[in-house]
Amino acid sequence: MYLPWLATASAALSFSVHALYPLNELAKTPQMGWNNWNSFGCDVDEELLISATEKIIQYGLRDAGYQYIVLDDCWSNGRSSNGTLQANTTRFPSGMAEVADRIHNEGFKFGMYSSAGTYTCARYAGSLNYEHQDAQTFAGWGVDYLKYDNCYNEGQSGNPLITYDRYKKMSDALNSTGRQILYSMCNWGEDYPWKWAQTVANSWRMSGDIYDSFNRPDARCPCTGNEEYNCALPGFHCSAMNILNKVSHYIDKGVPHAWNDLDALEVGNGGMTDDEYKTHFTMWAAVKSALLMGNDMGRLSARDLSILNNPAIIALNQDPRGTSAVRVWRYDVDDVDRYGQGEIQMWSGQLSGGDYFVALLNAGNSSREMNAMADDIFYDDGEEGTSEESTMEWTIHDLWANRMPEDVAQALIDGNSTQASSLNVTSYYFNATETSYEDGLASNNTLLLGQPVGTLSAKVMITAEVPRHGIMAYRLRLAGWGLRKRDEL
Amino acid sequence: MYLPWLATASAALSFSVHALYPLNELAKTPQMGWNNWNSFGCDVDEELLISATEKIIQYGLRDAGYQYIVLDDCWSNGRSSNGTLQANTTRFPSGMAEVADRIHNEGFKFGMYSSAGTYTCARYAGSLNYEHQDAQTFAGWGVDYLKYDNCYNEGQSGNPLITYDRYKKMSDALNSTGRQILYSMCNWGEDYPWKWAQTVANSWRMSGDIYDSFNRPDARCPCTGNEEYNCALPGFHCSAMNILNKVSHYIDKGVPHAWNDLDALEVGNGGMTDDEYKTHFTMWAAVKSALLMGNDMGRLSARDLSILNNPAIIALNQDPRGTSAVRVWRYDVDDVDRYGQGEIQMWSGQLSGGDYFVALLNAGNSSREMNAMADDIFYDDGEEGTSEESTMEWTIHDLWANRMPEDVAQALIDGNSTQASSLNVTSYYFNATETSYEDGLASNNTLLLGQPVGTLSAKVMITAEVPRHGIMAYRLRLAGWGLRKRDEL
Amino acid sequence: MYLPWLATASAALSFSVHALYPLNELAKTPQMGWNNWNSFGCDVDEELLISATEKIIQYGLRDAGYQYIVLDDCWSNGRSSNGTLQANTTRFPSGMAEVADRIHNEGFKFGMYSSAGTYTCARYAGSLNYEHQDAQTFAGWGVDYLKYDNCYNEGQSGNPLITYDRYKKMSDALNSTGRQILYSMCNWGEDYPWKWAQTVANSWRMSGDIYDSFNRPDARCPCTGNEEYNCALPGFHCSAMNILNKVSHYIDKGVPHAWNDLDALEVGNGGMTDDEYKTHFTMWAAVKSALLMGNDMGRLSARDLSILNNPAIIALNQDPRGTSAVRVWRYDVDDVDRYGQGEIQMWSGQLSGGDYFVALLNAGNSSREMNAMADDIFYDDGEEGTSEESTMEWTIHDLWANRMPEDVAQALIDGNSTQASSLNVTSYYFNATETSYEDGLASNNTLLLGQPVGTLSAKVMITAEVPRHGIMAYRLRLAGWGLRKRDEL
Amino acid sequence: MYLPWLATASAALSFSVHALYPLNELAKTPQMGWNNWNSFGCDVDEELLISATEKIIQYGLRDAGYQYIVLDDCWSNGRSSNGTLQANTTRFPSGMAEVADRIHNEGFKFGMYSSAGTYTCARYAGSLNYEHQDAQTFAGWGVDYLKYDNCYNEGQSGNPLITYDRYKKMSDALNSTGRQILYSMCNWGEDYPWKWAQTVANSWRMSGDIYDSFNRPDARCPCTGNEEYNCALPGFHCSAMNILNKVSHYIDKGVPHAWNDLDALEVGNGGMTDDEYKTHFTMWAAVKSALLMGNDMGRLSARDLSILNNPAIIALNQDPRGTSAVRVWRYDVDDVDRYGQGEIQMWSGQLSGGDYFVALLNAGNSSREMNAMADDIFYDDGEEGTSEESTMEWTIHDLWANRMPEDVAQALIDGNSTQASSLNVTSYYFNATETSYEDGLASNNTLLLGQPVGTLSAKVMITAEVPRHGIMAYRLRLAGWGLRKRDEL
Repeated sequence: MYLPWLATASAALSFSVHALYPLNELAKTPQMGWNNWNSFGCDVDEELLISATEKIIQYGLRDAGYQYIVLDDCWSNGRSSNGTLQANTTRFPSGMAEVADRIHNEGFKFGMYSSAGTYTCARYAGSLNYEHQDAQTFAGWGVDYLKYDNCYNEGQSGNPLITYDRYKKMSDALNSTGRQILYSMCNWGEDYPWKWAQTVANSWRMSGDIYDSFNRPDARCPCTGNEEYNCALPGFHCSAMNILNKVSHYIDKGVPHAWNDLDALEVGNGGMTDDEYKTHFTMWAAVKSALLMGNDMGRLSARDLSILNNPAIIALNQDPRGTSAVRVWRYDVDDVDRYGQGEIQMWSGQLSGGDYFVALLNAGNSSREMNAMADDIFYDDGEEGTSEESTMEWTIHDLWANRMPEDVAQALIDGNSTQASSLNVTSYYFNATETSYEDGLASNNTLLLGQPVGTLSAKVMITAEVPRHGIMAYRLRLAGWGLRKRDEL
Repeated sequence: MYLPWLATASAALSFSVHALYPLNELAKTPQMGWNNWNSFGCDVDEELLISATEKIIQYGLRDAGYQYIVLDDCWSNGRSSNGTLQANTTRFPSGMAEVADRIHNEGFKFGMYSSAGTYTCARYAGSLNYEHQDAQTFAGWGVDYLKYDNCYNEGQSGNPLITYDRYKKMSDALNSTGRQILYSMCNWGEDYPWKWAQTVANSWRMSGDIYDSFNRPDARCPCTGNEEYNCALPGFHCSAMNILNKVSHYIDKGVPHAWNDLDALEVGNGGMTDDEYKTHFTMWAAVKSALLMGNDMGRLSARDLSILNNPAIIALNQDPRGTSAVRVWRYDVDDVDRYGQGEIQMWSGQLSGGDYFVALLNAGNSSREMNAMADDIFYDDGEEGTSEESTMEWTIHDLWANRMPEDVAQALIDGNSTQASSLNVTSYYFNATETSYEDGLASNNTLLLGQPVGTLSAKVMITAEVPRHGIMAYRLRLAGWGLRKRDEL
Repeated sequence: MYLPWLATASAALSFSVHALYPLNELAKTPQMGWNNWNSFGCDVDEELLISATEKIIQYGLRDAGYQYIVLDDCWSNGRSSNGTLQANTTRFPSGMAEVADRIHNEGFKFGMYSSAGTYTCARYAGSLNYEHQDAQTFAGWGVDYLKYDNCYNEGQSGNPLITYDRYKKMSDALNSTGRQILYSMCNWGEDYPWKWAQTVANSWRMSGDIYDSFNRPDARCPCTGNEEYNCALPGFHCSAMNILNKVSHYIDKGVPHAWNDLDALEVGNGGMTDDEYKTHFTMWAAVKSALLMGNDMGRLSARDLSILNNPAIIALNQDPRGTSAVRVWRYDVDDVDRYGQGEIQMWSGQLSGGDYFVALLNAGNSSREMNAMADDIFYDDGEEGTSEESTMEWTIHDLWANRMPEDVAQALIDGNSTQASSLNVTSYYFNATETSYEDGLASNNTLLLGQPVGTLSAKVMITAEVPRHGIMAYRLRLAGWGLRKRDEL
Repeated sequence: MYLPWLATASAALSFSVHALYPLNELAKTPQMGWNNWNSFGCDVDEELLISATEKIIQYGLRDAGYQYIVLDDCWSNGRSSNGTLQANTTRFPSGMAEVADRIHNEGFKFGMYSSAGTYTCARYAGSLNYEHQDAQTFAGWGVDYLKYDNCYNEGQSGNPLITYDRYKKMSDALNSTGRQILYSMCNWGEDYPWKWAQTVANSWRMSGDIYDSFNRPDARCPCTGNEEYNCALPGFHCSAMNILNKVSHYIDKGVPHAWNDLDALEVGNGGMTDDEYKTHFTMWAAVKSALLMGNDMGRLSARDLSILNNPAIIALNQDPRGTSAVRVWRYDVDDVDRYGQGEIQMWSGQLSGGDYFVALLNAGNSSREMNAMADDIFYDDGEEGTSEESTMEWTIHDLWANRMPEDVAQALIDGNSTQASSLNVTSYYFNATETSYEDGLASNNTLLLGQPVGTLSAKVMITAEVPRHGIMAYRLRLAGWGLRKRDEL
């Protein structure tokens, strides 16, 4: 019997299996790592990087998959007389090649920063018109990743072609080095990179800079993401919900090797509640954003660590199918906070192995009961209640139920391996260095699946109490065929 | 005596009779056919095409005018060493030339697909920078039609001139083959093709991809069409009403040989009710969209067949005058569905022979009585009640009254020609292979005119009960001169 | 004593007296004439033009200042073998040069039409890439005026520079003929001609085509002019109020020799009430639009003639100061018509000789009392009640009080000069062939000043009952210095 | 202990200390001076400039920091036969070089005006395509500043690159003269100069022309600044609140040597109340706008002088940190004026030395009590109540409490130095010629700090009664560490 949703599914799937890679073999799933900007800004030096790598290892985050250590702006000391970029020797006395070596030796990859302009955003030397020379310098230092910013671009923007040409130059330059360097465009969504960057880059920022707020409007980030998919002023100080609402319109434009980047995470920086950070992290993962931690590792709390290392959430992000969740519905609610914000959303999406992701997101100002109807969850697979899936029976797995307990996380932070061991840390912990997420999912590793909490019967719905600014996130796995049998299909 | 509305009429008419053809002699009326994408996506092979042609013949749809069989994305196996596009030999073991021959032998024309980009949307080889070579390949295979998509266009968009240049290259390439190939642009309305594509192409898509929903909003199709005639993100998952509202602002830009394309039909795919599909089909026809069926012919229901083969509706689309219906008014109503959608519309338009089209469209959430006032119907012919037409008397023909009964349609689907014959199938059936719509209309073929159901007297109105998400569609034919006599005019 | 408003005034005045003419010496005040399109469309021939000129003379409209007879689209028969444009010899058997001669002999100037595209809007040969050849042809025929349209422009739009380059070519071509040819751009406001066309053309259309409706919204003219000064789809079927609201944002961009063109008048075409046509005509005049009549002269009513020939209104348009009236305020009102439209506006502006224009425009659905406060009238001359003018005393002249009586106008239409004379036709009639508007105003010709109806005292207001969709229009002339004396100033 | 806000602070600070200057060494803080346009328009001559300089000295404004005397449009007499710009010898009989000398001798710098177009806005010769020749002419005359306008730019706009190229030409030309000339771009914010002008110019206008109104909407300035950061029609007659709301979205784009220019001040021109002018002046200073007085010095009132010379406000503008205040919140209020306008705002920002700026702005129609909560004031330094600053104790200084009394100001205006001295004028007066604002701030000069009026305790708020259209503006200085001690941090 013919299943229309299988045709749809295979059509979508073809994107991930077809052999024409856009640029390189990197970022088959979204890149994961750490970037210093959100917590340290310009206050960088080599010890900051090294101490961060040590803690990332100690906390188990490297093995959770965060493999890129990305140094942001302010590392530079301009160009030498022959035009070669030079690191600030006060801040990086060992030299960048040595820093890269040490990072590599710790089992990480090393990311650097420049700007497609005359200057970087902090007014250090930029790479515009120096693309090939700088790419050679980076490759020579052993760089594995380039975040490429947009400041001081000498007016070279205003339509996709102008911006494409500017960013393509560095893409070609990186390719010509012969080294595999992940190319992370950061032009804040100007000129719609989601339309054209897939053949040029491994990821592209799609908004102005994030700041550590769940949903506070800020005059400096004037586009709301509700209706403005054409934002002439990306700005900065964009809240997590602002960025999420913006990307909702083009989440499908991220494909394997080329992803939307919603900017580095704020988890651990103190500006959101625990529920807000859970929402922020879940949705970044579910829409296949690049996942760069942005916190100060020296101040990470146990609660925040147990967000960043949740294997059931990371598995959404690293799912081999590479299909973003979709915002199925969004409604304003009267229950607003002091900024006048109040809304609720439901997201769902297909995962590998026939599983589904479902999230109920409550950005209202108080806890509320929310519902996800089967017809809505499976909407994309047969519109208006016609899907086969909506007639089936599904086991519901809560993706936050197995969150690492606070004492376990604290033991990791304290470096108390004895206690961690006694608290059975490995039962909360997925080691992607040993087993890839793809393999872990294929083998039904329970750490990745979440905690079974119920069943979604044919044509019914999931109901949950969702806290203020919080989220309930689920993986659905086929339990039975409802009123039909498999061989009827 | 001078009639201002006749001057207006003849001015408009001049577009259809003037001798300067924009491109080629194809698509004098909107092209009709079948495209596999909406129901099969990438799941294509030569048997799919052949079996579709067989059913299209059996169901009488070929003779209803659906003459192009269009193969969409995923047929390719990349380029040979000399750069020539190659078909996937697993899926098309006979080779494309042979497939084209078989399609031609069935009395159809053969359409192919490529993209004005580095890749097609499913990441097969695209034709950007290969325009002439690929046009020669297509011509060599016997291709009659090219759907030319917009994915992976390397940033070549952002103003009309950039996009025009890119699509013009393939237009010139097709022309230079010497073969008449219908050129169907598919750049989703970016950079306003309705402003400039008439000299380049036979049709242009004007929106993001349709999906099988009457009016459900979807975050992935963010422009509503209510006020946003400038859509920076065409998206996909656009509902039928979304697309219809968008095109309402530039329906006049379609002219003979160069038409708006509202995307392939969803009739038969299961996501809409019978009333919704009738509305969808009627309006696609009335605004002179290209009419490509998008369903799986192997699963077509009798009800859906009797929509797709309604000769009185197709005659709107194939009317030799080539003038789109116009949205005369549109109001939001409080009677909204669960997506918050609710509106009503009235459309009218001039047809050949002095006839008029009128439609009452109810996109409210329940059945309602609606009115079309004579002054509104004839608004374009003399504003604010000054038209001669509004003082005349008109016979009202219901265009759905003679819809093929379900048992007749079922007999066609079953291939039971005996029963079809006994049910008098030919009385519901217009054979455009034998007689063109133009000739049928000129000879007042009753299949094309609909069922007389009443009279519109001078200065009065049409009243009808219109079902939820449904339409009442009429042809008006002059019955008398009301209070005036013809020789007074 | 220093007067800030005099400084402002002289600054503004410098635009009209400074010696650098942008293009040519034509259109020092907005051009006036007649264009066939609104009433005849493509139904043109030489007899239409000649008979129009005869009636325009007979009705006194030539001497009222309407001096250009502009032939619109559909006159062409394509190009000869050497590429020269040829007139349709069936429609213009005498040839265009002969037609021009006859028009010149009647005391008129002759206007032609082409398009900055491959085709004209009715698909005749366009002038794109033939600019110099066609300009020579027009000059050789004795053409004095070119309306230059925007259809089939091969994608050459999207930013000011692209459009400027396209229209500049014809500007240069016309200049190089050595003949003074008024250049009337018609690109519907695309790419903001009001920003850049002053050095290229004598006028520019700033909206989609007008239609004969006061304020009915139409889907084909989607920009409302309320907030959308950036209209990606000019469309057509734009109402008079729609166009007026659009131009309100950039009325200052019209300067001597280079004017906004709000499209040809609809007065006489039957789609508006008498009050509506008065409003339409008054405002076109007051904002210094080109004034092209668009009616069928053979069907002009006495009422409509007495609108088109009102010398007190035309004097606003031809005022030598060349400063547009300004929309001082605009409010939505609840008193809406069946299209949901309802608003009121107040306009004022400076005229030569220190006079002022004031208009109260009622686009509500019923008659209402309206007020124009002195502080608002003189707002530009000293903000928020600080102007010297608002403290002075002014005589109020009603610009419609001396409208030609219906029997007088009918006598002119009937060609009954005896009766016209007995009805004292010359007391309603300004002959600009004998005396320019500039000279008439300088000599205080009472026909141009309107009827004194009262006094505006210091700091008080004008109050008037304004009919539905109507206007009260006034000229203010200084009567005294209120509480101050002239030598105090 | 690590403080995240210090990292943020030092990151921001790096912009002001890093050595790569964009263009020249001028305008390290926003330029201050006087421009004749707002009050004199085209009515300019050398005596106007000289008499203005004399009064500016007499009133103490030169020593308050207003050092540029900028001559605007209408000084020109076209070009000589070799293309050199020539001054109007009637208006400038001494010649421009001599005028510059006299201005220099008075201790001022001399600014000139031209336009990046064929003509200036008043239709004198513009500098487009004459950039190098004109820059040489200006340098030869001893010009120190160029205001470079945007009229008659021959369509050279529409995306950043086109506009950048046009303005870059004059930037390069000025640089190549070898003279330090402050380059003040005036393209009204078209094509987003705040994105790209920092490497090209010392300041850029970001809106249409100001007019002398606090918040009256005007059709000629259609963008409201509420949501429209992409304004296709800058227009003119923009109110102070309109401009302030526009710039609120990109205040961060101004950096040392490259500033937003909100247009010249209207203080002293009579269109606003005293409270409105205080608000206007305070906010122009706080957002680091260029500060050009725009009044007639011969008519300056004592009240207005005591606005323009307030050292505590000017110190905001000339603060060496160079960081703009930020609009923390903005709400519409029901208390609207006759234009329908009513809103309230709170602004805060970081100053040098760890001080903070706070303003409560009441654009409602009557006086009201307003609050600034500590968490909001310090929002940028630790979001949602997490900042260290919000837990500290601050002394509140009222920046208007020490405003120069009216009799003192009147004595200055009268040139009565004896009386001024007896009224102790120096206690209200900061002499920036003797001591820079940077040094004055570093030495805690009380004239610059304002009057202590209270204390902001940990986590509480500032409350004030704010008059209609008025402002309360404060400097906060650290008084204590609240519940914490400094060495805990």
